[in-house]
Parts: sequence; structure tokens; C-alpha cells
Amino acid sequence: MRKHLEFKGDRWEGGEIHEYKGNRDVIKHVLFGERNGLDFEVRVFEVKVGGATSLERHEHQHAVLVLEGEGSALVGNEVYDVRPFDGIWVPPNTPHQFVANKGKDLKILCVVNVRRDRPKKLSDDELKSLLSNPRIANIIRVS
Amino acid sequence: MRKHLEFKGDRWEGGEIHEYKGNRDVIKHVLFGERNGLDFEVRVFEVKVGGATSLERHEHQHAVLVLEGEGSALVGNEVYDVRPFDGIWVPPNTPHQFVANKGKDLKILCVVNVRRDRPKKLSDDELKSLLSNPRIANIIRVS
Repeated sequence: MRKHLEFKGDRWEGGEIHEYKGNRDVIKHVLFGERNGLDFEVRVFEVKVGGATSLERHEHQHAVLVLEGEGSALVGNEVYDVRPFDGIWVPPNTPHQFVANKGKDLKILCVVNVRRDRPKKLSDDELKSLLSNPRIANIIRVS
Repeated sequence: MRKHLEFKGDRWEGGEIHEYKGNRDVIKHVLFGERNGLDFEVRVFEVKVGGATSLERHEHQHAVLVLEGEGSALVGNEVYDVRPFDGIWVPPNTPHQFVANKGKDLKILCVVNVRRDRPKKLSDDELKSLLSNPRIANIIRVS
């Protein structure tokens, strides 16, 4: 297993590139994880300008650090403007989304447990409640 | 617990700053970990130009990503020149050190398990063996 995962601008030497839930605006890179014998996984998500990660919730937590670009993060009922090297904590079961809505691609690092539950879409009621907040309605992307 | 840990240039709003083993060339920031109920811990180490992290080994692994600056990384018997956003994997029980030897401060993110063994110094024999390699002798800092 490679010790030095050299960054090549659009990929990592020795990193894995994954499709992201059929969303062509997001590229997922897995740098470290189960294949290293780790209990956690270190991923980088590249969100193309105008794009967004899934709007979802799950029991597992996200520990996020912005690497490059700018955007907005929804965490629960809050919207944060984010830039390098801001950290974002997504607690268990909290609706969240990362949106590249500032005219730039957004690159974020995200650490999760290897063993984790599957993401869930929000219910119609949750979605309605979020959309009733203009600040949230202004940034989220509902696919 | 704060969801948005805004980066303020020399610290994170809501992050913890820790002393680093009596080494004044290194500042340790803990962003996410046990207080979030996580099994892993996300830290950032700022290594001042000319400084280095401890030369050590331990059973727990490091998953590292360079955020800013340049430097060299010793991992086992290999030396790597590192820059943003290179990844470095430190497998179990592998001697390692990060050195800010390129005229710049070096900022690295490092993920570990919350439950982990204590670092060990290298034995005299290990040190002698490392120093017999000119490339390694040229970069490591033995305190």
C-alpha cells in the first residue's frame, strides 16, 4: 500500500475515485480507509461550481474540513458560509448539504467511520420545514 | 457543540489548542474528536519553518493530508517531499517524522483513533540504522 499519495491537481496517486450517487457535479476520492486497516475513512469531495452534495441525514457523523473554494453548508437548521480551512461538524441524524454556490468549485475533506448506516432522504415534512426558512430555501438543492 | 469551526488564520473558532510535547516549533489544534462522540480525532499540526514533529513509532496509524507549506516526511525507510494536498499514510509501528525543511511553515491534518497507544522513541539501533542512510540523515531531527 502506497505511503505517499501525491496530489496531482485532479486526483491522488494511489487514491480511489468513486462515482457519487449518480451526481455528476461531485467527484469522490477515497484516500485512506478499510484497505489500510483503518476504522475510519478519509475522503475528499470535489463539488463543481453550481453543484451540491446530497441533502440527507444518517446516524453516523461527518467531520469536515474545507480544502479549497467557497460555498455554503446546511447543518440542521443552520446555514454557514464556508471557506478554507473551516471545519464543519455534522452530528448524528442531522440534515446536511454542501453547496458550491459562490462561483467556485468546492473541495472538502470528510472523515467518517468505515462502519456506518446508509444515508436517508428527508421526509416531505422535513423538507417543507426547511424550505419555509428563506435563508435555507435560498441555498439548498432538492433533487 | 459548535457546528462551524471557522478558520481564523492561526486558530479555529471552537478548536482546542494543545501544547506539543514541549516542542515550541509545533502547535497542535484538535478540531473534532471524543467531545463530539467520535471514535477518531481530527487534528492539525502547524510545524514552524525549521521545526519537526517527534521522531517516533506506535501501533496506531496516522492518516495525514498536507494543508499548507512544504516539507519532508519520513515514513519507515522512505523520505517524501510533501506539498498541498499530498496524503501520507503511516502504517502501524513505523518510524515517522514531518519536517518543515523547505523554508516554509508546514500545516498538516492528521486523523487517528481516539483510543491509541502511546508513542515510543526509537531505539539506538533503529536510529543508527536510519542515520546510515544519507537521504534520511539529511532530513530527520533527533532531539
